[in-house]
Parts: sequence; structure tokens; C-alpha cells
Amino acid sequence: MTKTNQPERAVWAEKTTVCMIEQNVLPFKYQVFRSESYAKTIVAIKTMITRGAGSIGAAAGYAMAQAASEAPKNDYLNFINTAKKEIEASRPTARDLFAATERVYQKAKKNKALAWLEAQLVADEIVDAGEKIGKLGNALLKNKARILTHCNAGWLALVAHGSAIAPIYEAHNTGKKVFVYVDETRPRSQGARLTAWELNRAKIPHAVIADNAAAHYMQQGSIDIVITGADRIAANGDTANKIGTLEKAIAAKYFGIPFYIAAPISTFDFETKNGAGIPIEERSEGEVIFQTGLDESGNLQKIQTVSPNSHALNPAFDVTPAELITGFITPKGIFTAKELLKLTINPLKPSHFR
Amino acid sequence: MTKTNQPERAVWAEKTTVCMIEQNVLPFKYQVFRSESYAKTIVAIKTMITRGAGSIGAAAGYAMAQAASEAPKNDYLNFINTAKKEIEASRPTARDLFAATERVYQKAKKNKALAWLEAQLVADEIVDAGEKIGKLGNALLKNKARILTHCNAGWLALVAHGSAIAPIYEAHNTGKKVFVYVDETRPRSQGARLTAWELNRAKIPHAVIADNAAAHYMQQGSIDIVITGADRIAANGDTANKIGTLEKAIAAKYFGIPFYIAAPISTFDFETKNGAGIPIEERSEGEVIFQTGLDESGNLQKIQTVSPNSHALNPAFDVTPAELITGFITPKGIFTAKELLKLTINPLKPSHFR
Repeated sequence: MTKTNQPERAVWAEKTTVCMIEQNVLPFKYQVFRSESYAKTIVAIKTMITRGAGSIGAAAGYAMAQAASEAPKNDYLNFINTAKKEIEASRPTARDLFAATERVYQKAKKNKALAWLEAQLVADEIVDAGEKIGKLGNALLKNKARILTHCNAGWLALVAHGSAIAPIYEAHNTGKKVFVYVDETRPRSQGARLTAWELNRAKIPHAVIADNAAAHYMQQGSIDIVITGADRIAANGDTANKIGTLEKAIAAKYFGIPFYIAAPISTFDFETKNGAGIPIEERSEGEVIFQTGLDESGNLQKIQTVSPNSHALNPAFDVTPAELITGFITPKGIFTAKELLKLTINPLKPSHFR
Repeated sequence: MTKTNQPERAVWAEKTTVCMIEQNVLPFKYQVFRSESYAKTIVAIKTMITRGAGSIGAAAGYAMAQAASEAPKNDYLNFINTAKKEIEASRPTARDLFAATERVYQKAKKNKALAWLEAQLVADEIVDAGEKIGKLGNALLKNKARILTHCNAGWLALVAHGSAIAPIYEAHNTGKKVFVYVDETRPRSQGARLTAWELNRAKIPHAVIADNAAAHYMQQGSIDIVITGADRIAANGDTANKIGTLEKAIAAKYFGIPFYIAAPISTFDFETKNGAGIPIEERSEGEVIFQTGLDESGNLQKIQTVSPNSHALNPAFDVTPAELITGFITPKGIFTAKELLKLTINPLKPSHFR
């Protein structure tokens, strides 16, 4: 679908327009959302038209560059400072958003051309990171491996390749047979909608399961390894990721199944000591109460699946303690939590993303 | 809604017609399904028009009595023998179904009048068991207790009162303030649909959460106790219950939160040594792929929420090992797994149910 040899991307720029695959209507419709302004890109991030740590990062970087293009000459710095704060407020948990915004902001302070170059570099580095994660993570997957994954950490979530799914793509591409148990991932069902769509497209055998069924398959000896992505990883290895990751990690520990987090370096937040310092986004109860899908006529329908008059609580992420995580698959190698501090990270250095 | 002082029932008989609250359309519609034949009652059990260990037991007992009424005089025993096997094949996991069918069958061998008396006794004893579970279990709930429950183990599931919800009703009725975290309980969403409906009706404060969020609230210190029902409890205390119960029990253990199973005696299966001997029902993948709810016009709509061309796996139950269960709330007292063997159970004795 792309014009170059690059893998298809979930987020990209055409001149100053940010293009995003509309992930709210996937897999039922394939649409590209085009945003001509940084404000519209923020809305796209907030409403999860694009989502996933890396794709949010890329979109935020582009949004910062859009702001630089939109800034009036006589109020340039004020404008981009305000824009930076607005972009950062769009999703509070995702580390990549802050990392990307900061990098592009530093260039935007000089001029808009440098900002756009940096935003493009951020996106390219996320793609590069996913490719490296795939190659390194593949070493953990034996032939006939049965993998459990939660949410969507595929190319939709990381611009291209993916984080948790990248090793699965690489294993499949290098001739290994693999089978993926895909957690539905309520309330937004990113597993059932997006990961299943990606795997189906790549012809990788898989089955969607209710989130409730993961521990059962672990108990049955049907799962060899769990790999998920991450939204933010604290200095001690505590990891914020999609709600439910914590439960899978606890269950994996109980059954002695290795549990890995796959993430680009941009997801690591060494300024936050541990998970207690990671803000957890609370989203609307409507995401639990209503669900969207295809009706019998092939139209998208929103239905209410919770008892009327009952309320819902909807934390978007949870924090998995480092002690439950076997290792971190990064573009720089696979590390245990204790080894993480070896990573020297400078958020303003380009190599920081890969 | 009932004419007597009895609590409202989820399953009852009017002459030889078995009446069941149609639980597939609750909470969006309140309908009573009337079955005039044992074959139709079997269909109602299979399609989960009635569900929940106790309600299935009561319906199965009535179905056995219906079969006795329908049996031709010249082929009476053959007919009821065949009917017994058909009833037992309707849901493989629920212990109460087998216990109730066996009891009514023993009377049906004599005559249909005795079969109906026994079926009514079975239902009444389940109601009585729920009442006792409520009174005993209430002792575990302090004022301001925050309880997590999974699936629906309320009066809909146990003819009246309930098992896991019975202590919550009792606490509420005796003036305690309680708050219930209601697991949505995918794929059939019995928590979001039925437990939320019951609690809303009883004006008990609660919130529905995605199944994925339970461990997060445990980690936050927001849950004091977990109580669920059971479909079958083996001699060593291993417990089959709705898929996802295992994950909640593992998470509760990890966070040091007490985890209780509430069940009538009829749910105990002392002939099965441990969980490995409990058959786990696999249900249709359609329950994961499609969901039903109210559309914007107030009509029931079925929508597809899983990526087209992807398959799903749908185990209906899982087995929680006894080591994860703090105690069993029964009509005869609250026991640890080791204490369970004190219960002397004779499946043919009426008192067996309470």
C-alpha cells in the first residue's frame, strides 16, 4: 500500500498533513484520517483515531511540527509553548508522547523546517526500533511457540513492525510455525479488533479469547510465552500498559510462564523511579457501557451491553511490578529489570528512540 | 412480583409448565419463558434462558418431573431413563444439574406425583440454601466492605437469594454500607447484564468494570474481599466456576485479598477427587465474536466485535485450585478446603441441598 519499500505505516505525514489509519473503525472499515492542524491531530490522539505508544509518539511529534508551521511569526514561541502543553495533555500515560514532543519542540524553537525533519526522524526511528525488536525477540520464540498477547502492540501501535507483535512477525517470516492467543482486551477490544486484523492479514494462525480465558490456557499448558507492549516503563522496570496486563503477568508468574515486555527505548522513563509515579488515565465509562461493531446489514452499530442505570469505572492502564517481568525486549537487547539501568538514555539524543 | 411472601424466583413451576426468567434478554427486557415439555426445558438450559448452578439444578429437576408426566404408561421407565440422559447432557459442568436430576429421577421411578413433589422440594431447598449462605456470609463483610464478584451468582442464578450475592443482600438489608465491583464477565457479560441489574434493583452501590481491571483495583487497595459462586466443587476444594474466576483468584492471592466461593451443598461433588476430573464445557465461538445489546432506538441488536475471518476459543469455565481459596461459604458453615471433608453428603438425601 505504500509507494516505497518501507513497511506500511499507521501514521505518516504528507507535507504538513498528518495521516493516520483510523483505528476506531478497524477492522470493519479501512479509512485514513487526515489532519491539517495540530489541534485536529490532538483530537485524533485523544479519541484514539491513532493509538499505541509508538504511533501516539509519532503523531505527537508531527503535531508539534504542525504547530511550528501554524505559529504566527510575531508570537512564535508563545504559540509553540502552548501547543506543546496541549499535545502533552492529550494522553497522560504514554511515555513516547512526551519523548517525541520534547524532541521536536527543541528543534521547533529554532525553526519549523528543523521541527519537521525531527518529527520525521522520530517516526523513522520508531519504525527502526520495531524492526530491531522483532529480530531480537524472535530468538525467544521456538518453532511451534504458542504466544499470548494483550491489546495491540503490532504495527498499528508502533507506526510499523510493532513491539510485542514484531517478534511474532519475524518468527513467521523466518519460517517458524507460531500460534497466537489474542486477548480480546476489553473495554476497547484492541486485541479482537486490531491484533486479530493484523494477524489475519499476515496469515499468522491465531484465536481470539475473552480476557478471562488467558489463565485457563496457561493452566492447560497451552501458552509458552506472554509478550505485551508498554506505555511507560519506570526506572525500576515497573511497567504501565493496557489494563489487564497486570492480571496476565500475575497469572504467568503463578504458572511459571515467561512474561516479556517489548518496547522501544522511547517508552522508558528513567525519571520516574517506579510504577507509583506513573499517572493512570481514567477514560469515559461509555467505553465499558457501549460497544461498537458490525450489525447484520454490515453497518457499524453502537449498542449498550451494560444494565441501564449502572455505572462503570474505566482505568485505561495498570502497572505491572518489575518482579513479574521476565525481561524487556528492546532494540538494544533483551534485559532483565536489574539490567535496565545499563541503558544510557538521553531524551534529546536521536539514538534514544532506537 | 410474586404472590406469596417467598422471594421472587428465577425458575418455578405452574402445574407441569416450567417458568423461567429469560436471562438472555435481561436487563434489556423482562420476559418469562414458559416450557410445557421436558425437551423444551432442556433447550432452555442449553441456550441459557436459565443459567447459574442453582437455577440450572431447579430447572433440571422440573424437567425430570415433566418427563415423568410425559412418559407413556407402556414405556414409562425407558422414557424417563432416556430423558435423564438428555437432561444430564444439556450442560456438562454444573454439578447441581446432576444432583437435582438424580434426586427427581429416583422418585420418578415410582410415579410422576412423587417426581413433582421432589422437584419442588429441590427448588425450595436451593432457595433455603441461598438464604442460609446469605446469613452466614454476611459475617465476612464489615461495614463499608468493598467486594469484587465475577459473573452472576445472585438470585437469578440460584432460584432466589443467590450464592455469592446472598451475603451482599444480607449485609445491605442489615444496614451495612457495601460497594460492589462487578466484573463484566465476558464473553456473555453476566456481570454487566445480570449482576448489575440485580444490584441496581436492590439499590446496592456498584460499578461495572472490564474483567481486565480487577487486579488493578486489588493493587490500589480498593477491594477487601472477593466472592464468587461455583458450578462444581471437587472433593479437595478445586472449584469450577465461570471462566475468569481463576484469574481473579490468582490475583487475589498475589495481593493477599481473601477469596471466597459461595455455594449450596448440591454444588459439591465428592466423587470427583480434584479439578482435573471436572469436565470444562466449550461453547460456541459466536459468544466471543458477537455481542447483543440495545441500539440507539432501544431495539436488541447483535453486532460483531471481532475482526472478520478470525476465530475464537470459548471455554465456559475454569478450575481454581483449592490453594487459592480462602474459604467456602455454604449453608452449613464457612469451611476451608481441608475442612470440606467434614461435610457428610448423601446425594439422595433431601437435606443434601441445604
